[in-house]
Amino acid sequence: MADLAAVKRALAAQRIETPSWAFGNSGTRFKVFAQAGVPRNPQEKIADAATVHRFTGVAPTVALHIPWDKVDDYAELRSYAESLGVGIGAVNTNVFQDDAYKLGSVTNPDAGVRRKATDHLLEAIAIMDATGSRDLKLWFADGINYPGQDDLRNRQDRLAAALRETYDRLGADQRILLEYKLFEPAFYATDVPDWGTSYAHCIELGEKATVCIDTGHHAPGTNIEFIVAFLLRQNKLGAFDFNSRFYADDDLMAGAADPFQLFRIMYEIVRGGALDPAYGINFMLDQCHNIETKIPAIIRSVMNIQEATAKALLVDRDALSRAQNDGDVLEANAVLMDAYNTDVRPLLAEVRADAGLDPNPVAAYRRSGYQERIVQDRVGGQQAGWGA
Amino acid sequence: MADLAAVKRALAAQRIETPSWAFGNSGTRFKVFAQAGVPRNPQEKIADAATVHRFTGVAPTVALHIPWDKVDDYAELRSYAESLGVGIGAVNTNVFQDDAYKLGSVTNPDAGVRRKATDHLLEAIAIMDATGSRDLKLWFADGINYPGQDDLRNRQDRLAAALRETYDRLGADQRILLEYKLFEPAFYATDVPDWGTSYAHCIELGEKATVCIDTGHHAPGTNIEFIVAFLLRQNKLGAFDFNSRFYADDDLMAGAADPFQLFRIMYEIVRGGALDPAYGINFMLDQCHNIETKIPAIIRSVMNIQEATAKALLVDRDALSRAQNDGDVLEANAVLMDAYNTDVRPLLAEVRADAGLDPNPVAAYRRSGYQERIVQDRVGGQQAGWGA
Amino acid sequence: MADLAAVKRALAAQRIETPSWAFGNSGTRFKVFAQAGVPRNPQEKIADAATVHRFTGVAPTVALHIPWDKVDDYAELRSYAESLGVGIGAVNTNVFQDDAYKLGSVTNPDAGVRRKATDHLLEAIAIMDATGSRDLKLWFADGINYPGQDDLRNRQDRLAAALRETYDRLGADQRILLEYKLFEPAFYATDVPDWGTSYAHCIELGEKATVCIDTGHHAPGTNIEFIVAFLLRQNKLGAFDFNSRFYADDDLMAGAADPFQLFRIMYEIVRGGALDPAYGINFMLDQCHNIETKIPAIIRSVMNIQEATAKALLVDRDALSRAQNDGDVLEANAVLMDAYNTDVRPLLAEVRADAGLDPNPVAAYRRSGYQERIVQDRVGGQQAGWGA
Amino acid sequence: MADLAAVKRALAAQRIETPSWAFGNSGTRFKVFAQAGVPRNPQEKIADAATVHRFTGVAPTVALHIPWDKVDDYAELRSYAESLGVGIGAVNTNVFQDDAYKLGSVTNPDAGVRRKATDHLLEAIAIMDATGSRDLKLWFADGINYPGQDDLRNRQDRLAAALRETYDRLGADQRILLEYKLFEPAFYATDVPDWGTSYAHCIELGEKATVCIDTGHHAPGTNIEFIVAFLLRQNKLGAFDFNSRFYADDDLMAGAADPFQLFRIMYEIVRGGALDPAYGINFMLDQCHNIETKIPAIIRSVMNIQEATAKALLVDRDALSRAQNDGDVLEANAVLMDAYNTDVRPLLAEVRADAGLDPNPVAAYRRSGYQERIVQDRVGGQQAGWGA
Repeated sequence: MADLAAVKRALAAQRIETPSWAFGNSGTRFKVFAQAGVPRNPQEKIADAATVHRFTGVAPTVALHIPWDKVDDYAELRSYAESLGVGIGAVNTNVFQDDAYKLGSVTNPDAGVRRKATDHLLEAIAIMDATGSRDLKLWFADGINYPGQDDLRNRQDRLAAALRETYDRLGADQRILLEYKLFEPAFYATDVPDWGTSYAHCIELGEKATVCIDTGHHAPGTNIEFIVAFLLRQNKLGAFDFNSRFYADDDLMAGAADPFQLFRIMYEIVRGGALDPAYGINFMLDQCHNIETKIPAIIRSVMNIQEATAKALLVDRDALSRAQNDGDVLEANAVLMDAYNTDVRPLLAEVRADAGLDPNPVAAYRRSGYQERIVQDRVGGQQAGWGA
Repeated sequence: MADLAAVKRALAAQRIETPSWAFGNSGTRFKVFAQAGVPRNPQEKIADAATVHRFTGVAPTVALHIPWDKVDDYAELRSYAESLGVGIGAVNTNVFQDDAYKLGSVTNPDAGVRRKATDHLLEAIAIMDATGSRDLKLWFADGINYPGQDDLRNRQDRLAAALRETYDRLGADQRILLEYKLFEPAFYATDVPDWGTSYAHCIELGEKATVCIDTGHHAPGTNIEFIVAFLLRQNKLGAFDFNSRFYADDDLMAGAADPFQLFRIMYEIVRGGALDPAYGINFMLDQCHNIETKIPAIIRSVMNIQEATAKALLVDRDALSRAQNDGDVLEANAVLMDAYNTDVRPLLAEVRADAGLDPNPVAAYRRSGYQERIVQDRVGGQQAGWGA
Repeated sequence: MADLAAVKRALAAQRIETPSWAFGNSGTRFKVFAQAGVPRNPQEKIADAATVHRFTGVAPTVALHIPWDKVDDYAELRSYAESLGVGIGAVNTNVFQDDAYKLGSVTNPDAGVRRKATDHLLEAIAIMDATGSRDLKLWFADGINYPGQDDLRNRQDRLAAALRETYDRLGADQRILLEYKLFEPAFYATDVPDWGTSYAHCIELGEKATVCIDTGHHAPGTNIEFIVAFLLRQNKLGAFDFNSRFYADDDLMAGAADPFQLFRIMYEIVRGGALDPAYGINFMLDQCHNIETKIPAIIRSVMNIQEATAKALLVDRDALSRAQNDGDVLEANAVLMDAYNTDVRPLLAEVRADAGLDPNPVAAYRRSGYQERIVQDRVGGQQAGWGA
Repeated sequence: MADLAAVKRALAAQRIETPSWAFGNSGTRFKVFAQAGVPRNPQEKIADAATVHRFTGVAPTVALHIPWDKVDDYAELRSYAESLGVGIGAVNTNVFQDDAYKLGSVTNPDAGVRRKATDHLLEAIAIMDATGSRDLKLWFADGINYPGQDDLRNRQDRLAAALRETYDRLGADQRILLEYKLFEPAFYATDVPDWGTSYAHCIELGEKATVCIDTGHHAPGTNIEFIVAFLLRQNKLGAFDFNSRFYADDDLMAGAADPFQLFRIMYEIVRGGALDPAYGINFMLDQCHNIETKIPAIIRSVMNIQEATAKALLVDRDALSRAQNDGDVLEANAVLMDAYNTDVRPLLAEVRADAGLDPNPVAAYRRSGYQERIVQDRVGGQQAGWGA
C-alpha cells in the first residue's frame, strides 16, 4: 500500500507551470473568438497566472513567450511577478511569425533568415539572464509542405548549427528544452518531428540540452508514457507541454481527452523518481482555451494533472512488482487500475486544506469575483493573442 | 485497350471548379503569410479564376464563399464573370466566423443563433437565384470541444430542422451539397463527421440533397475511393472538394501528397460513369496555398487532376474485368498499375494543343506576365483572406 | 442528482452477452499461446460462460460461432445451456475460413463461392430456429488486398444480393446484425468498412436489419459515441461487440485501453434510453485473451462495462442539460466528469450483494476452484480455437 | 539533367535481398490460405529465391529465419545456395514462437526465459559464422498488452543487457540490425517501438549496431523518408525491410500501397549516397503474399523498388537544388514530380536487356514453366509457413 502521508507530501510539493499565452485569445485558422477580460499585456497575463497559483497552490511560475511578452525592462517584470507571488519560468522563443520565416527559421535556405532566427534565440537567453529563468524552450515551426520543397538533410545541418551556437551561449545554470512536433504548421515534413530527432540533437549538444514532450505533438497511436519512461532512463527528459487532444494538436485542457493516458504518463514520472521538483523537469501547461473561459480552464487543467498524479502515487508498487514478476497479467493490470479507479478528489481536498487553500479551486475562483473584475477593468487596448 | 480518341474527348470535356477563396491569403493558426498581388475583392478573385481557365481550358466556373464574396449586385458579378469567360459555380456558406457561432451555428443550443444561421443559408439561396448557381454547398464548423459540452443527439435534431427548412426553399434546379469533416475547428465531436452522417441526412431530405466529399476530411486510413464507389452506386455523390494532405486537413495542392490515391478516386469516377459533366458532379478544388504562389499552384492542381483522370481513362477495363473475374490478383493489380505508371503528360499536351491551348499551362502562365501585373496593380486596399 | 435506487435497478437489469470463442485459444498471426483448461467443445465453452454468469449475474446468454460451435443437435445444446442457467444468444456466421473464401465469400467474383457462403448464412438461421436465437450476426472478412484486385462496386451488388436473400429468410422475431470493419484480414478495401455502409444496407433491407458496432473496428480518431448517438436517433443500432484497443483490432478486454471512451459510449446508451434489455440491443463481448487467463479476463471485462455504465447512470442529467443550454462549456464538461471520476465499485458491490452475489466476482472466481478444476479435467482432445 | 549512363549503371548495380519466409505460406490470425507449390524446406525456399534472381538479376542473396530455416549443416546450405547462384544474406532471429515467450523473450520478467532467448541470438551468430552472413537482424515481438502488465523501464534494462551480450559476440565483420515496430503482436507497448529507441540502443552498443527500417512498422502519418535522411546523416541506417501497407503492418508488396512514398524513400537513399552496395545497407523485402502467387509477387516487388529507384536517380538534382535555394516551392516540387511522373519501365527494360535478362521478368517467369513445375513436384511433406 502507498504511504498516504508521503503521497500528500508529494502532492503538496508538486509544481506546474502556466503559460502566459494561454490567458490570451487563441483559436483556429477559421476564427479566434475573443473573450472579455483577456489580458492586454504581459503584466496582466502574469496577474492571471498568479491568480491560478493563488487558488491551486501548485503553479508558482509562469512561462513567457517572446516576442509576445516583450517588455522594455525584464528585471522589472520579474519583480512584478514576484510581488504577486509567482516567478518567471521558461522563456519560449517564437521564430514563426515574422514574414521572413515563411520557408523556415533556423533551417531556412536563406542564411540571412537563419542569422535573424538564431539571433532571436540568443536574445531569449539574454532575457533569461534578466529574468532569472533557467529554461530556454525551443519549438521550431520549421518544415516543408511539399516533397522536394527543400532538402531534408541540409535542413538538419542548419538546425544543428543554430542549436550549437545557442547551446554555447547558455549560462552555467541554463538549459535548452528541445520540443518536437509531427506536423502543423508544416504539412509534409517538420525538422524536429519526433522525440528521436530531438534526442539525437540533445545528445550531440551536451548535458544542458534535454527533450521537451508536448503531449499533443505525436502521431496517432504513439505511446507517450513509453517515451517518458525511456527518456527518464536516458536522463534526457527536461520538460512537458501538457494539453490533450482527440485528433491532432487540439490543445484542449490537460486530461480532458484521455484522463487514463495522463495517469499512465504521471505513473512513469512517479516510477522514475521525477515528480520531485528537485529532479528538474519543467511540468508546463501549453493549451488553447478557444471557447471556454480561460482562468477556470487553466485551474481545471492543473487539477486534472493533480488528480492523475495522486492516482499515480497511490499505485501499490510492491503489489505491482510482485504481480509483474509473477507474470500475472490480470493482477498486475488490476493493481494499476485499482489506483486509477480511486476517487482522489477527497484526498486532494485535504492536501489543499492543509495548505490553507479552498478545497475546490474552481468554485473558489468563481466566488472570488476576479473574473467579473477583469471583464470590467480590461476594456480598451489590444487584447493579447497569438498575433500580438 | 482504352480507345484513345474517346479518352481525349473525355479529357477535353472534363470540368473542374476553382474556389474564389484559394486566390486570397490563407494560413494556419500560427501565421498567415500575405502574398503580393492577392485579390482585394470578388472581382479580382474572379479575374484570377478566369486566368486559370484561360491556361487550362477546363476550369470554367468559380465558386463563391458568402460573406467573403458579398457584393451589392450579384447579377452584375455574374455578368462580370461571364465577360471574362467563366461562370459562377457553387455558393459556399459561412456560418463559423460570426462571434455568435462560438458554440455552433445551426446546432447551437441558442435558438436565436440557429435562426441567424439558417437565415444565412436561405440568403445564400437568394444569391444562387441571382447568380444562376445550381449548388448550395453546406459545410458546418459546428461541433463541440469537450465531452458533455452539448448533447450530441439534440444537435442532430437541430441540424435536421435547419437542413429541412433550407431544402424546402431550394428552387427546382437547385440542390444541396452536404459536406462532412472529422474534426477542426471542433476537437471532440463534429455534427457531420463522416459520409454516413451526411448520407443519412441527404436520404431524409430528398433527391436534391447529395453528399460532398472533401478529400482532406477523413480519419487516417479511410479508403476514399470506396466512398466514391459506394455513393455513386447509391446515386448520392454530388461534389468533391479536392485538395491533398499528409496528416489532417492540410489543404495542399490536389494530388501533391498521394497521387496514387487521386488516381484511384478518379478511376472510380470513370468506372461509375460520373466524369461526364452531364452526370452532375461538381468537381471543385478547395485548397490553401499558404506558402506557394497561388495562381500557378491552382493551375498545377488542375493539371494533377487531369493527369490522374487521364490515367484512369487509360485503364484497360476489359483486361481488368477478365483478371478480376479470373481471381488473378497480380494480373488485375498489374492492369491498373499499368495505366498508373504511364506518363500521360504527352497525351494531355495533345489535348491542350487540340483545344488551342499551350501544352504547358504553368510555363505559359509564367510567360504571360499576369503575375507581375497583379503584383504591380494590386497595391493598397485590403487583401482577401479568411478574415475578410 | 441521479436517483440511486433507479441506478441500482438499471445496473441489476443490465445484460451482457459472452462469446463462446473467447473461452478458446486465440492469438496473433505470429503465435497462438495455448492455455491449460481451455474448452474442447461447445458444451465446455457454454459451461465457462455459465460460470461467468454465476459470478457476475449479468451475463445470461452466450453467443455461438458457426462452424466453430457446430453440433449435431442444437435443441440439445440449448437445453444443456439452460440447465446451466444460460441461454443461446446471437449466432455468428463464419465465411472466412474455408479455402474457397480466399478472395471473398458473398462478394467473391465466383458465383459458386457466393452460393456456398449464402447457404451458410441460411444454415445459421436454421440453427437460430433450433436454438431460439433471435440474432444473426454477420461479419464479412470480404475485401481486397490490392487496388484493382476486384471491382469495388460489383462487390456491393453481390453483397446486397446475399443480404437480401438472407433477410428474406428471417423469421418474424429474428433479425440481422450487420457488422463493419475498416481492415483486417483485407488490407486495401473491405466490403463493409464503416457504419455508413452497414447503415445504408440495413435501410434498404428493412426493419429487421440493424447495425452492429465493434468498438475495435474503426479508423484512428473515430468518435464511436457519436455513432452510437446517431444510430439510436435513426433507430438502427442493434448490437455491440465490445473490446478495446490501442492501435487496430487489438481485441483487448473491454475498457482496458480507454475506460473514458467506454463511459462516453455507455452514456449515449443511457441518454438514448437503450440500456434497458427491452430496447433490444445485444451488448456482446468480442475479445481475445491471448496471454491472460480467459475466464477471469471475461469477468473483468463484464465488470469494466458495469463500471462504465454505473458512471453513465450517475450523470446528473438535469444539471448537464442546464449547463449545455446555458452554453457553459466548463460546467457541462465538469458535470460529466464528476460522474466519471466517481468510484462506483462500492455501488456495484451493493448491487451484487443485493442479487446474492459475491461483491468481488474475480476474487470469488479465484476462490471457487473452477480454474483448477478445468485445468485438471480438460486434458486430451483438441482445444477450441479459431482454427477449430 | 541526370546522366543516363550513370543511372543505368546504378540500376544494374542495385541489390535487393529476398526473405526465405516470403516463399512459404502466410496469412492473418483469421486464416492461412495454403498455396500449391510452396517450399517444404530451406533448400526449396532458396531455389525459389534463386529463381527470382534469375529473372531480375538484382536479388543475389536470400535471408534466413531461424528456426524456420534450421538445418544440420549450414555450410552445406551455403554451398547449395551458391550452386544456384545466390548467397546467404541476413540471419533473422525468432524469439516469439516458443511457448516460453508468451510474456516476452529478452525482456521477459523471468531470467530463465531471457537466458534462453539470448542464447538463441548467440546461436544465430554461430549460423552467421557458418554461412558467411554479415547481418544479424533482430526483431523482438516483446511488449505488453495491458498497462501495468510489466515495468516499461525494467524491460529496457533487460533489453540492453541482452543486446550487449549479443553485440560482444559479433565477429569483426558482423553487425546487428535492430528493427523497431509500433505494435503487433504486443498491443499496448512494444519494447522497441520506434526508430528513436532503436537508435539510442545502437548508439550505446557501438559502431556495429545500426537501425533497420521496416516500412510497415510506423504510426499512421509517420514520414519515413525523414527517418531515412536523418539516420543516413547520423551514419546509423543499416537495413530495410520493404513492404507496403494501407493500415498497419499489412505486409503487402513493396510499392503497392503508396508508390510515391517508395519513390521519396529511394530519393533519400540516392541523395545520401547510400544506394551503392558498398555503402552497406541491406535492402531486404519482408512481405506476406497471403492471397497472390508468391514468386511473381516477389518479382513484382523487386521491380517496384527498381522503378522507384530509377525515378529517384532521374531527379535533376542541380535544378532541384537551385529551386530549393531560391525558395521556389512550386518549381522544387515540380522538379521532383517530373522524375516521379516519368515512365521508367522502358529504361529498366534496357538495363535488363543489357544484363542479358528478359526485359519483362514477370512475363518471363510465367513462360518459364517454373510455377507449374513446383506445383507438380512439391507434393506431400509439410509446407513451410510461419508455424513451421
